[in-house]
Amino acid sequence: MDIAQFIERSIGQWRSQRSVHHLAFRHFEEVISTIEIVALVPDSQEVLDLCQTHGVDPQLIVHPFRMSWQGESDWDEAEVVEGSTVLVPVPDTDCPNQGKLLRDQGYAETIPAIGQYRIGADGVFVLHTPYDRAMAEEKIWFASEHIRFRVSLIKTSLGSGVTTASFSSEVRSLS
Amino acid sequence: MDIAQFIERSIGQWRSQRSVHHLAFRHFEEVISTIEIVALVPDSQEVLDLCQTHGVDPQLIVHPFRMSWQGESDWDEAEVVEGSTVLVPVPDTDCPNQGKLLRDQGYAETIPAIGQYRIGADGVFVLHTPYDRAMAEEKIWFASEHIRFRVSLIKTSLGSGVTTASFSSEVRSLS
Repeated sequence: MDIAQFIERSIGQWRSQRSVHHLAFRHFEEVISTIEIVALVPDSQEVLDLCQTHGVDPQLIVHPFRMSWQGESDWDEAEVVEGSTVLVPVPDTDCPNQGKLLRDQGYAETIPAIGQYRIGADGVFVLHTPYDRAMAEEKIWFASEHIRFRVSLIKTSLGSGVTTASFSSEVRSLS
Repeated sequence: MDIAQFIERSIGQWRSQRSVHHLAFRHFEEVISTIEIVALVPDSQEVLDLCQTHGVDPQLIVHPFRMSWQGESDWDEAEVVEGSTVLVPVPDTDCPNQGKLLRDQGYAETIPAIGQYRIGADGVFVLHTPYDRAMAEEKIWFASEHIRFRVSLIKTSLGSGVTTASFSSEVRSLS
């Protein structure tokens, strides 16, 4: 599976059930949200802007997309968490199963970020994104056409410790 | 990494934080538990008994172990969930990264079970165990020497649907 196929399978609306484990405190957090993933036109302004920010040739990109989410955490039920980010894959020219993933806003910090992705022989998408004071590692895989799972780890900068681990079950909204 | 190395790294006591997602109901369950994994002597009676139950030559087994757990679910805080199971790996003779895993008690049903395991190039241990009315898929991997993660899926017998997904963060007890 290459990145274009992986994104193609991901396009749509997903109901997400997410558990966050704060390891030091053995604390649980639960989040219910809706995620929407839509394809973007490669020469749309927001995609071209992101390429320019990172100095990437727009000819090298594949299947850009926008991910939006809206959710509720059990930490503060009154607060609705929502956001949206543009993501642009840039496959390595010599190895199409891996490459860079540009995004205009990261998970761990709200600044533009560049991650390194790799899709394994088992179809698992793995993404490493370095931030100033942390590193995020994300694994996403499909259990079936309409169910995908995501494990996200926030690690210390050196990658030795894990501060937060989260698990999302994402079921496609067919309605 | 082969199965002996994987089990060697797993020996010890672990504090587990587990979230269960019941997908149809978008229900969360939280479980805090202690897991203990101890090596067993290959010619101990419990190991030989399990080999005999499954008709496996005891010469072919590698690094048998016992896993015990004691935990509390937020579904019923008064109830302490505990149990113990003997596990015996039987690597394929032609491919040491995969094989059978015998156990005297399964997760999904309390009968003896045989699973098929495989350790990928990325070090992820994947186990498939068929049961009468369901199939369990488990992935376990180490983030560091003292942190491991586990994703368990309960699938319908045909493997197309996932009824329950759970995620465990396991941190080694160093005390």
